[in-house]
Amino acid sequence: MPGNTFGHLLRLTTFGESHGPALGGVLDGVPPGLELSEADLQRELDLRKPGQGPTSTSRVEADLVHIQSGIFQGKTTGTPIAFIIQNTNQHSSDYDELARIFRPGHADFTYWAKYHGYRDYRGGGRASGRETAARVAAGAIAAKLLAQIGVQILAGSVELGGIGCDELDLPGAIGRPYFAAQASVIELWDQAVQQARKQHDTLGGIVQIEVRNVPAGLGEPVFDKISALLGHGLLSVGAVKGIEFGDGFQAARSRGSANNDLLLAPEKQGALPGFASNHAGGMLGGITTGQDIVMRVAVKPIASVPRPQKTVDIDGKACEITIAGRHDLSAIPRIVPVLKAMTALVIADAWLMQQSLG
Amino acid sequence: MPGNTFGHLLRLTTFGESHGPALGGVLDGVPPGLELSEADLQRELDLRKPGQGPTSTSRVEADLVHIQSGIFQGKTTGTPIAFIIQNTNQHSSDYDELARIFRPGHADFTYWAKYHGYRDYRGGGRASGRETAARVAAGAIAAKLLAQIGVQILAGSVELGGIGCDELDLPGAIGRPYFAAQASVIELWDQAVQQARKQHDTLGGIVQIEVRNVPAGLGEPVFDKISALLGHGLLSVGAVKGIEFGDGFQAARSRGSANNDLLLAPEKQGALPGFASNHAGGMLGGITTGQDIVMRVAVKPIASVPRPQKTVDIDGKACEITIAGRHDLSAIPRIVPVLKAMTALVIADAWLMQQSLG
Amino acid sequence: MPGNTFGHLLRLTTFGESHGPALGGVLDGVPPGLELSEADLQRELDLRKPGQGPTSTSRVEADLVHIQSGIFQGKTTGTPIAFIIQNTNQHSSDYDELARIFRPGHADFTYWAKYHGYRDYRGGGRASGRETAARVAAGAIAAKLLAQIGVQILAGSVELGGIGCDELDLPGAIGRPYFAAQASVIELWDQAVQQARKQHDTLGGIVQIEVRNVPAGLGEPVFDKISALLGHGLLSVGAVKGIEFGDGFQAARSRGSANNDLLLAPEKQGALPGFASNHAGGMLGGITTGQDIVMRVAVKPIASVPRPQKTVDIDGKACEITIAGRHDLSAIPRIVPVLKAMTALVIADAWLMQQSLG
Amino acid sequence: MPGNTFGHLLRLTTFGESHGPALGGVLDGVPPGLELSEADLQRELDLRKPGQGPTSTSRVEADLVHIQSGIFQGKTTGTPIAFIIQNTNQHSSDYDELARIFRPGHADFTYWAKYHGYRDYRGGGRASGRETAARVAAGAIAAKLLAQIGVQILAGSVELGGIGCDELDLPGAIGRPYFAAQASVIELWDQAVQQARKQHDTLGGIVQIEVRNVPAGLGEPVFDKISALLGHGLLSVGAVKGIEFGDGFQAARSRGSANNDLLLAPEKQGALPGFASNHAGGMLGGITTGQDIVMRVAVKPIASVPRPQKTVDIDGKACEITIAGRHDLSAIPRIVPVLKAMTALVIADAWLMQQSLG
Repeated sequence: MPGNTFGHLLRLTTFGESHGPALGGVLDGVPPGLELSEADLQRELDLRKPGQGPTSTSRVEADLVHIQSGIFQGKTTGTPIAFIIQNTNQHSSDYDELARIFRPGHADFTYWAKYHGYRDYRGGGRASGRETAARVAAGAIAAKLLAQIGVQILAGSVELGGIGCDELDLPGAIGRPYFAAQASVIELWDQAVQQARKQHDTLGGIVQIEVRNVPAGLGEPVFDKISALLGHGLLSVGAVKGIEFGDGFQAARSRGSANNDLLLAPEKQGALPGFASNHAGGMLGGITTGQDIVMRVAVKPIASVPRPQKTVDIDGKACEITIAGRHDLSAIPRIVPVLKAMTALVIADAWLMQQSLG
Repeated sequence: MPGNTFGHLLRLTTFGESHGPALGGVLDGVPPGLELSEADLQRELDLRKPGQGPTSTSRVEADLVHIQSGIFQGKTTGTPIAFIIQNTNQHSSDYDELARIFRPGHADFTYWAKYHGYRDYRGGGRASGRETAARVAAGAIAAKLLAQIGVQILAGSVELGGIGCDELDLPGAIGRPYFAAQASVIELWDQAVQQARKQHDTLGGIVQIEVRNVPAGLGEPVFDKISALLGHGLLSVGAVKGIEFGDGFQAARSRGSANNDLLLAPEKQGALPGFASNHAGGMLGGITTGQDIVMRVAVKPIASVPRPQKTVDIDGKACEITIAGRHDLSAIPRIVPVLKAMTALVIADAWLMQQSLG
Repeated sequence: MPGNTFGHLLRLTTFGESHGPALGGVLDGVPPGLELSEADLQRELDLRKPGQGPTSTSRVEADLVHIQSGIFQGKTTGTPIAFIIQNTNQHSSDYDELARIFRPGHADFTYWAKYHGYRDYRGGGRASGRETAARVAAGAIAAKLLAQIGVQILAGSVELGGIGCDELDLPGAIGRPYFAAQASVIELWDQAVQQARKQHDTLGGIVQIEVRNVPAGLGEPVFDKISALLGHGLLSVGAVKGIEFGDGFQAARSRGSANNDLLLAPEKQGALPGFASNHAGGMLGGITTGQDIVMRVAVKPIASVPRPQKTVDIDGKACEITIAGRHDLSAIPRIVPVLKAMTALVIADAWLMQQSLG
Repeated sequence: MPGNTFGHLLRLTTFGESHGPALGGVLDGVPPGLELSEADLQRELDLRKPGQGPTSTSRVEADLVHIQSGIFQGKTTGTPIAFIIQNTNQHSSDYDELARIFRPGHADFTYWAKYHGYRDYRGGGRASGRETAARVAAGAIAAKLLAQIGVQILAGSVELGGIGCDELDLPGAIGRPYFAAQASVIELWDQAVQQARKQHDTLGGIVQIEVRNVPAGLGEPVFDKISALLGHGLLSVGAVKGIEFGDGFQAARSRGSANNDLLLAPEKQGALPGFASNHAGGMLGGITTGQDIVMRVAVKPIASVPRPQKTVDIDGKACEITIAGRHDLSAIPRIVPVLKAMTALVIADAWLMQQSLG
């Protein structure tokens, strides 16, 4: 309830500040017998690691994950899986100014207001994007669990700095710069990034996430529709300002006759019905249809703009701040594995819920 | 966890099928001493009532609410407030065909898949929009609680059938047809509705919701950001296919220098800082800033299109259905009080959470 | 969280005051396809009904239950089952004095302190034993669910007014006065009751509850051991002052060599091991062993003693009260179906949890 | 829900196996501004540490705790406090036999049954008493929070091997061997322990826990009565087989006239009423009265009896086991700080809940 735990039957609790000793998490509810190693988590963490692309900070954290519990002889035991990532590459002195000055677009002011003035201001403390490393580690476990039943989660960047893709190849995204959903936009995005960097500015973008081969029947009426659970999970990622499912905001401009996905007779005896289209994004009444779940999330531009900005300090005095420290130019692409991780956690939890019905 | 309960400290559990004996809910966690009567709930229910506008069904339900508990001598006692709305105007025979045939765009198929073939198919059963009456009744209580601390929730339709408003007057929306956020669009919307009706089709739209005078500090890091909680609540309303906060999807196309809301010195000694703009929609790091919370949700067109549609039956055989029964032409405007209600429930819950910190 | 909801996957929310319009509950999470009717609930409610035994109040409530949702064509649908019991036989004027005076042994003072002076004082309001009717109704559903997998819950009174049974026949208890676990104690208990009545006093007792044919593997480490969940459920019933499992407090005086239940080879190929004894009461490490779960709970004497008692009023002034109204002389036997109901809810929930592991 | 998380607003999640890399926990919901250091946790952990009394194992773990998050400049920040205790003194080879043989009185069989054969059998794995170190560390934080409002938690052993105290001095218990509630029993207990050791056997006992200076009004009706929450917490500690509140099982033998605690006029203007006795153990209707909360729990004898015992192996074959490894002779006294810790967690959580009402 105080907000650092997510999920019902598969339940992630995370902890850690950007410049504290470590961050990590505890994933409870993983069924026994799943083969799992630190390498499974590290692989996903490496995709989120800073310092490896055109939009990335020069802060290089190894982000090595260490599992503390819940695995025995290479398999899960059903007990909680705890993992730790030490914070090693910290320039805390970069952040001294932040003890007193609220950065625009950051959580400095709101944490100060919420927690009665007590906060770890170094690098954003708990509100830092580093917090998402724990999500990625846990999401890797959820994804491995889902892989056992054939469910696959794909994601890619479909827009950066206002430049969108016109064709999507999500399976190929992971191998491309920016985790771009289309190879041909990369050059345009490179130019946009260079220009923004030159102009001391930052960029936002849009990420598409899909869940393939998902069983029909996941999600709970009324309040825990699969869209509501996914919305909760993805909107909880910092920088996400919107989410849509299937045709999303375009569905609001469509007509019922065009927006309805007509059902088709099953391809073979005993199979579930198919659909002639997927405007709904894989769900009806909040329950999965068995079609692909399709979502897009809006990612705001990085708030740490490398130029002077007007703001106030903790005494309410107007002042100016020029943000030091090492920062990404866009949350794209590093946010992509985070969004995949949250999606995996939601779907795996919903699948365990559905299993409880027998 | 099975999905019919929402909230933490303020917790709503709802029940009821479209054509069962009754629907209702239990709202637990309302602090003692709040003046409350059935009239407070009825007023909001009447705004959601069918049969009163150009997009509305001819099914006329009185939707009279009866409080069963939790009120004594006109005030809340801190114990759960249960309320019941009898189902009175039912034409169940309209729905006989639905025992076997899945309506496109409805939850018929997904409930059938989820619940192993057991379901109350009459009028959509639990998946019917009638379920939202319980949300509205509970939301009226949450809104009254919030009014005590000066928080006000406004909402209005800002787009219908692709025709948007260019200026918003949310406080006036409640008095207008369609709960329109602008008086001058009403005539255009009337024309769009007449045309759609003539073409045997249905419309979608967009609703904007704002929370005014909200205290800074509400929402919980990391997973229960105020955006995540609001997203969960609003995306759990049937027909909602997307949500955005502040500039939302436009923020993805903006730059950091333009998207950051610069802080301003407080207007008077001891007050909190102000902001030069509100691109963020009233939250930073998932915690309220004290600015207005601003959200928009996308509402898909009504799935019950009054024309023949191809589909399949429960044996997987292709067939055609022409939907009988009485149906709205758009979820706008009746969804507006539902979205207000969910917003009130989320904000009141977050406020109780924050109170627990002392 | 505000305390009127119980369970995880099988989740009961209750409401209602002793002298309000009605009391009832919502049971969410019942799997689809279970045959269920109001008669199933009424049968258990009738066992708890006042006015039918030597220790009983003369208040005669029909306690007729009405199901509002979640059942279609005689079977559950997986959606929440709401039920209502109208309050019909109320002598509210009996309770006028209670607006100002705290009854000893009752929750009058603590509710007043908790809820800042706001409370429905009539008949104890929410703290009345009438609240347990909702538990019994819901427990009847859980018990029917468990019966499907062969699990049976038995309970009987094993001590009243300090007079205990020396041999237990729990299956026969339901047919005897006091739900006595032994036929031969009934005459002694009759005498004890008559004497207490003559002396204007009330009695307590002890109830034993057993769960038979329960699968091994139920309960969750670490905090949700089956003993912890059962303890939570049974200690939440008013008047219960203690609980023990297996040998319970006697186990504290035993030695390891005597207290350990030695394992035995399975009776047939592929079956689970057996045990040479059941000191543990059917659980090890908080997980069921497959043996019978055995529990006893201590029930305090009824607080409404029919004689003058010293107390204070809401202004803190000393005074005296002679309790009017109609009251039982002992919570035995009416508490027995309540304890069975809570046991059924816990075990059914734990079974759904275990099913989620596949 | 999978059982490794406890509490609502103050929420503890623990992890770790006896012979894994580490164990630890995450305590979420601690309000900001509480002075806290590792020494605060270590002090309580040292009271639970093995190797320091007559009933203790010779396994000497330093049990050094390391805080990973949630503290900045010596004060809590409102974010989750994670702590780790490395496992350093492991003789895993002591446990090789346990891969195949179920120890009587242990969770070996039930974990095997629950988790489909997957388990870390070394030293009991997750079911080991070592798990409670995380509870003690977290409880130390809760106790410090409670100390700020004057609430104090006391506990002491009141019975060992069937030998009870006849007078209690709980404040002095912490300084005595066995955390004995009375100085004069220590010699008798020493003799009992020596005898049991000579006879290759183990002992159980009873612990009394009291909460002093607790505010009136804590606990939630109906299902989350303070007794239910405390029962849940204390019964979740391994080896606890029963709990009673106030007069407990003796109350079942008392009469209403004797068992009711009469209210007394407040000692000074504006204060709350007092009580002439405390048979109820500090609660009425499940809500605290402001009197001391008084509880006793029954602790079974240690299951690791140092003599041959009959049992079966994972193939169901009868066999014999002589338990190697280093084991306590009684859970007394090491369980005492664990029970205090769970009590502190429950009361602090209930206090935060009550604060949310304003």
